[in-house]
Amino acid sequence: MPKISSKGTRMPASPIRKLTPYADQAKRDGKKVYHLNIGQPDIQTPDVMLDAIKNISFKVWAYTPSEGTLSYRTRLTGYYNDLGYHIQPQDVIVTNGGSEAITIAMQTCLDAGDEVIIPEPFYANYNGFACMGDVVVKPILSHIENGFALPPVAEFEKVITERTRAIMICNPNNPTGYLYSRRELEDLKALCLKYDLYLFSDEAYREFCYDGRQFESPMHLEGMEENVIVLDTVSKRYSACGARLGCIITKNKAVIASALKFAQARLSPGMVAQIAGEAAVDTPASYFETVNREYTERRDLIVSSLNRIPGVFCPNPGGAFYVVARFPIDDADKFCQWILESFSYKNQTVMMAPATGFYSTPGAGRNEVRLAYVLNKEDIAAAMLCLEKALTEYPGKA
Amino acid sequence: MPKISSKGTRMPASPIRKLTPYADQAKRDGKKVYHLNIGQPDIQTPDVMLDAIKNISFKVWAYTPSEGTLSYRTRLTGYYNDLGYHIQPQDVIVTNGGSEAITIAMQTCLDAGDEVIIPEPFYANYNGFACMGDVVVKPILSHIENGFALPPVAEFEKVITERTRAIMICNPNNPTGYLYSRRELEDLKALCLKYDLYLFSDEAYREFCYDGRQFESPMHLEGMEENVIVLDTVSKRYSACGARLGCIITKNKAVIASALKFAQARLSPGMVAQIAGEAAVDTPASYFETVNREYTERRDLIVSSLNRIPGVFCPNPGGAFYVVARFPIDDADKFCQWILESFSYKNQTVMMAPATGFYSTPGAGRNEVRLAYVLNKEDIAAAMLCLEKALTEYPGKA
Ligand SMILES: Cc1ncc(COP(=O)(O)O)c(C=O)c1O
Ligand SMILES: Cc1ncc(COP(=O)(O)O)c(C=O)c1O
Repeated sequence: MPKISSKGTRMPASPIRKLTPYADQAKRDGKKVYHLNIGQPDIQTPDVMLDAIKNISFKVWAYTPSEGTLSYRTRLTGYYNDLGYHIQPQDVIVTNGGSEAITIAMQTCLDAGDEVIIPEPFYANYNGFACMGDVVVKPILSHIENGFALPPVAEFEKVITERTRAIMICNPNNPTGYLYSRRELEDLKALCLKYDLYLFSDEAYREFCYDGRQFESPMHLEGMEENVIVLDTVSKRYSACGARLGCIITKNKAVIASALKFAQARLSPGMVAQIAGEAAVDTPASYFETVNREYTERRDLIVSSLNRIPGVFCPNPGGAFYVVARFPIDDADKFCQWILESFSYKNQTVMMAPATGFYSTPGAGRNEVRLAYVLNKEDIAAAMLCLEKALTEYPGKA
Repeated sequence: MPKISSKGTRMPASPIRKLTPYADQAKRDGKKVYHLNIGQPDIQTPDVMLDAIKNISFKVWAYTPSEGTLSYRTRLTGYYNDLGYHIQPQDVIVTNGGSEAITIAMQTCLDAGDEVIIPEPFYANYNGFACMGDVVVKPILSHIENGFALPPVAEFEKVITERTRAIMICNPNNPTGYLYSRRELEDLKALCLKYDLYLFSDEAYREFCYDGRQFESPMHLEGMEENVIVLDTVSKRYSACGARLGCIITKNKAVIASALKFAQARLSPGMVAQIAGEAAVDTPASYFETVNREYTERRDLIVSSLNRIPGVFCPNPGGAFYVVARFPIDDADKFCQWILESFSYKNQTVMMAPATGFYSTPGAGRNEVRLAYVLNKEDIAAAMLCLEKALTEYPGKA
């Protein structure tokens, strides 16, 4: 029997799915499980997108150009230029989700053995994409005490080697919700220019900034046009995760030319997704206002509820729809399993993602948990009550 | 300015797109260009699929399970079991097109430096997928004289090394249209068992078999269940290339488990595509009969027209919708460019794919061209007339 590749063995399993068997068992046991573990929003997709799907008029469901249709890229360019990106359609390659945008960008910029620096905790699937290209992730710790702000430049410089090719950030951040400031981006710019590095900017959560905070992108910075590669997706922006529609944006023409070869190998992004994505650009501002109001209230509720629980600390993040909180526990993996397996309050329990899955440094985040506030406020309140009781009963208190 | 990766430099450009600038110029010059270069069928997508898109009723365009929805995998299983595959839904992972199926299968089974043997000429993008994983393609020549039949087992054994992990076939073949016989598959089975190799079976063109010929899959062979990995797509089967919907099928549980980790990293295949794909299983048999009758007539027309041209030789393939023909020319790349750039007949010309792009062995296929019969018969006839004139005028005759 032929063996799978060592890469196939090394490939990390998704940390947020590890506990699924326990959640399934809890449900079979008749418990109600509040899912705060995944980033699948309950928010409705804008009607303009759903209508665009229903109104398709083509007769042959054909390939589109590998880089995406010109009409979609043109509409997208309008969206980005309203944000001040100053791009043209030829700076954009449409991808099958943000996931493929990340894969192609890594393949284009990093060889096997090359290194990418990522502040941790970070989106766990970056590990998987790196594994595919035998790329080495060099994590730098960010800390819950200062809300997971960007680590100081000196920390980056400590791990830079001659194999370092890129820095990767996610802004606003998954899992921490942290929103990088202009100042922090300027620091990264200096680093990238000094060491000739790419800056991968994963902006999946761009539209989710709260309390009047302003989203800043490295695309707003002058003088690093050749270094910046934005990785984007409509998944969260329009609650259209199932569309599988993302893009790569860069003004670096060599990167576009090479990324296009990877895009051509897989032929085409989805045609219906692009039709709907084009329509999505017309989503009314009121949609985002309603959604952001809802998320702000959920965040306020989850953050205040968490901080009221004795021994719990949760920063109040500026964006995305996640928080990472510190619990008075020995081990988040054990706790998140225990709460599904051995605990219930009024026949309810909570599924959360142990933060360890978002750290590369062994042992980091052992008493931290990521919670996605993708449920309505009533459910969040019930889940927090449940969690509070669980923390009282949990045998592994710290 | 940071450099792109050496992989990004090595990544092959798509050979069928290389001549696009010349075709575009020809169009700007007012010439009508017959596109026989690409595998985008002009056939209509079945109404059941288009209706399924128009009738979507979800409100949140959500992720599906990474392996695909259970309901789609269950319907697919029915389709494959009608073909005699004897599979279950858990043997299937749904992918973003056949392209992603190939990528994930390669990543799962081959490490950097591992080798896959592929009879050439072969689907050019296999080179790209191999490049992504630093996998080495070992080509074995098949020959136009015997219609590109499977090379003898001894030819495979000559290139097998301790790094060989897999043999890859495409059946019916792109670019040659060759349909492998049961006997040839048995030969491959013996090889795979003897040397402990995977057999990747790309069956994108399964539904396109002519003259009453029977499609045979390695899934029909007993005793190699752990070795066979089928790579499939709805792109050609239902003329639904823009759906980006494919799958990996294998009874090897270790491969499924590892491939699932790659699938989880990219989260989900498309939701609308799966809804439409589920509906597609109900495509009436009459659809395939009509389509196959049409393709048979086109093939008969193109093959007979080609063989009537002095000095041209074209085998009569049993499947797919491509032929590879030998022309009395010095260099197919030059000829295919010349016919777009410097030739016209009644203000018309033809775009074809030089076969060199489908060979890895340098110099192989230099006087061969691939033609896709994806146009209606009238256009094919006109294109063949044009080609005949061009071959008379071409200065680089052999
Ligand atoms: C930070 C981040 N980047 C990228 C993605 C990929 O999203 P998709 O592939 O759905 O576009 C996600 C999804 O959760 C994410 O959280
Ligand atoms: C032999 C072969 N395999 C795989 C594919 C990939 O198809 P898709 O990614 O559209 O499913 C193609 C497309 O032309 C093909 O010809």
